[in-house]
Amino acid sequence: MTPTSSAPDAGIHALLAAFSACGATGSGGITRLAASPEDGQARDLLRDCLRRLDAEIRVDRVGNQFGLLRLTRDPDAPLVMLGSHLDSQARSGRLDGTYGVAAAILAAEALAREAAAGQPFSANLCVVNWTGEEGARYRPSLLGSGVYAGRRDAQAVLALRDETGLTLGQALSAIRYAGTDTPPPMPACYLELHVEQGRVLEEAGAVIGAVTRNWGAAKLDAVFVGAQAHTGPAPMADRRDALLGAAYAIADLRALADRFPGRLHSSVGRIQVAPNSANVVPARVEIAAELRSADDAVLAEATALAEAAFAAAAERAGVAVSIPARELRGIRALPAAVSDLVVACAEAEGLSCRRLDTVAGHDALSLLDRCPTGLIFVPSLGGIAHNEAEATAPHDLEAGVAVLTRAARRLCRAAGSPDRALRGEFA
Amino acid sequence: MTPTSSAPDAGIHALLAAFSACGATGSGGITRLAASPEDGQARDLLRDCLRRLDAEIRVDRVGNQFGLLRLTRDPDAPLVMLGSHLDSQARSGRLDGTYGVAAAILAAEALAREAAAGQPFSANLCVVNWTGEEGARYRPSLLGSGVYAGRRDAQAVLALRDETGLTLGQALSAIRYAGTDTPPPMPACYLELHVEQGRVLEEAGAVIGAVTRNWGAAKLDAVFVGAQAHTGPAPMADRRDALLGAAYAIADLRALADRFPGRLHSSVGRIQVAPNSANVVPARVEIAAELRSADDAVLAEATALAEAAFAAAAERAGVAVSIPARELRGIRALPAAVSDLVVACAEAEGLSCRRLDTVAGHDALSLLDRCPTGLIFVPSLGGIAHNEAEATAPHDLEAGVAVLTRAARRLCRAAGSPDRALRGEFA
Repeated sequence: MTPTSSAPDAGIHALLAAFSACGATGSGGITRLAASPEDGQARDLLRDCLRRLDAEIRVDRVGNQFGLLRLTRDPDAPLVMLGSHLDSQARSGRLDGTYGVAAAILAAEALAREAAAGQPFSANLCVVNWTGEEGARYRPSLLGSGVYAGRRDAQAVLALRDETGLTLGQALSAIRYAGTDTPPPMPACYLELHVEQGRVLEEAGAVIGAVTRNWGAAKLDAVFVGAQAHTGPAPMADRRDALLGAAYAIADLRALADRFPGRLHSSVGRIQVAPNSANVVPARVEIAAELRSADDAVLAEATALAEAAFAAAAERAGVAVSIPARELRGIRALPAAVSDLVVACAEAEGLSCRRLDTVAGHDALSLLDRCPTGLIFVPSLGGIAHNEAEATAPHDLEAGVAVLTRAARRLCRAAGSPDRALRGEFA
Repeated sequence: MTPTSSAPDAGIHALLAAFSACGATGSGGITRLAASPEDGQARDLLRDCLRRLDAEIRVDRVGNQFGLLRLTRDPDAPLVMLGSHLDSQARSGRLDGTYGVAAAILAAEALAREAAAGQPFSANLCVVNWTGEEGARYRPSLLGSGVYAGRRDAQAVLALRDETGLTLGQALSAIRYAGTDTPPPMPACYLELHVEQGRVLEEAGAVIGAVTRNWGAAKLDAVFVGAQAHTGPAPMADRRDALLGAAYAIADLRALADRFPGRLHSSVGRIQVAPNSANVVPARVEIAAELRSADDAVLAEATALAEAAFAAAAERAGVAVSIPARELRGIRALPAAVSDLVVACAEAEGLSCRRLDTVAGHDALSLLDRCPTGLIFVPSLGGIAHNEAEATAPHDLEAGVAVLTRAARRLCRAAGSPDRALRGEFA
């Protein structure tokens, strides 16, 4: 017998309120940069929740935080992993990442209670908080999940520096989350619940999103190098203004998106200027440019056009440009068995559901191709994201927890196999 | 009898080498931000030089450093003031500012020696190092001289904060240059020797520049406010990207200079972006924009056009713009008597001299209208300024010291009056 609604309806709001206090901005949002003291507070809160569940807590060398719950008698039974990340952008929303971790705690709580009551399970459960998903304080994004999935080198990630020169390793040590534990083995299935951060679900009137594909992304760091000069006497014709080159590039990258309406997103979110003094023509400017598309051909063409635009912008400003770092994320499908399972669980909860793409990156994408991976969305009011005003209707938050819990239950009764869980082949 | 060349020819190079060690970048330049430990080292070196001259040293509340030398028996005799500033931009040249302070020390040394040898003087001398001329760490520029001249409020200046939140008052205390001394009274004449930072002297083949006028400047801080959003899912049409608005404005401000060829300089040297994260559409961007011209009508028209361009740039990006800070520096003539005296002294030294404008701001301009003020230039090789490669030919550096010393001598023998000094009416 499967309980129809095992997620404590009140639980998610109380838990989110508790996490929201860690790094609260005072205006509805949070600033909880990776490995900051505020991140440390949120991690401590997660640790306390996991302790109450009697979970075996592990912290690996890059600070990924795992809570292992034995639902079976077999410690080597397949693992179902649920989670997301507790770090945030500056002045950002309280749900992004945190919602997925909080929901995982509640799902784990429900399943642990059921196991204790004698329900049969054939997989164990793991709650996870991945380090440094946002790429805000430490760049790039998806650090902890990338190391776990073998996509990134742990030493290189620990050596990343923030604006003040502090390494991630040092920052993790300062908050006592530079762990030494071996991370759990790759799960039989990974599920992540997240707010959509777009308007697809809201416009479709759906409560649950089952992600079937991720958009591709090209992330280019472009460096413009000119010549430092006095903004006063230096004749205009002599100036080699790196910021001017970057400004042309930023404008041109925006124009590029208009050439592929609805099929290309482009942005520059970060700029570093040296020496950045009012009276000095900038010598060096670095911009973090991004292109995203659901169409491989568009992404490839737009990326080439962007690089050509940067070169033209530099030439126009009389400066040099180079692209020292390129990160390309291909368009990939998520396993159909997992998204079908999410759809089935939403239907069983009586919730309207829609299949959709994720445009944003998520830790789930780090694990894609490593294990069956699912990503569940709930609507973001007005599509607002990375903003203190980020919000989701309370009953939608509860609905997401219910679907995650139901999907996790089915997986844990089917030895973690999405195919078997989908077909109802329970142990 | 007037000695023909009283500046120790070797002195200026040795002195500049000693100052250059304070904040040396290792690649020929200096980083000696206002009230930094490196600035403290340079100030200590100046203090030691002044002590060797038996000067009365005073440090006022904003850290301006004065060394008073009695050349007469009358402590209330008129004062002739020589100096410049020891702070620098980041990775900047070793001459800017420092050259004027070092030359003032050498001129003072020569005149003190002459006074001790019985030469008659009718004015006393003061060497000065003004706090925070550059506007790099603490904005705006001309802080210390602005307070001394009554143009800026000392409390407000001390409360200015650097990027880390440290106030100028705290930074001065940390290097033990938050003084309590009363600054000397307004001098009868102020002279500042500086590198030109342009190519006028070099192209004219002149060694000495006698500044007759300063360009006007409009300094506008423009703030673009959009909406923080995720760079992934947010539809392009929904974005209100503050950095895009600023980029349009930077490009348009450059185009504005082309509308007034040779008559308008424009620049954006500084940009502050929040939250400045690769995955976040920027919410707030502040730029420090500058316009400079020798033509009042051009400057007024260009400033109005710039403000209109900023508004259009903001509208195009769907963001708001405001200009919370405007600083206007009018075009002003420097007193003819002082520039004529400089020309006369250059001729007496057998040096080619040219009258010219200053495009850059200098502490001398703070004192303009408060007392007779002169500004002496020596050539900058290639016009390079605010750059580690800034340089002046060694014999030109010596020539500048000789002219400053000769002009100071004539002033100190004419009770500080440029008119009397020019006419050779010595006491």
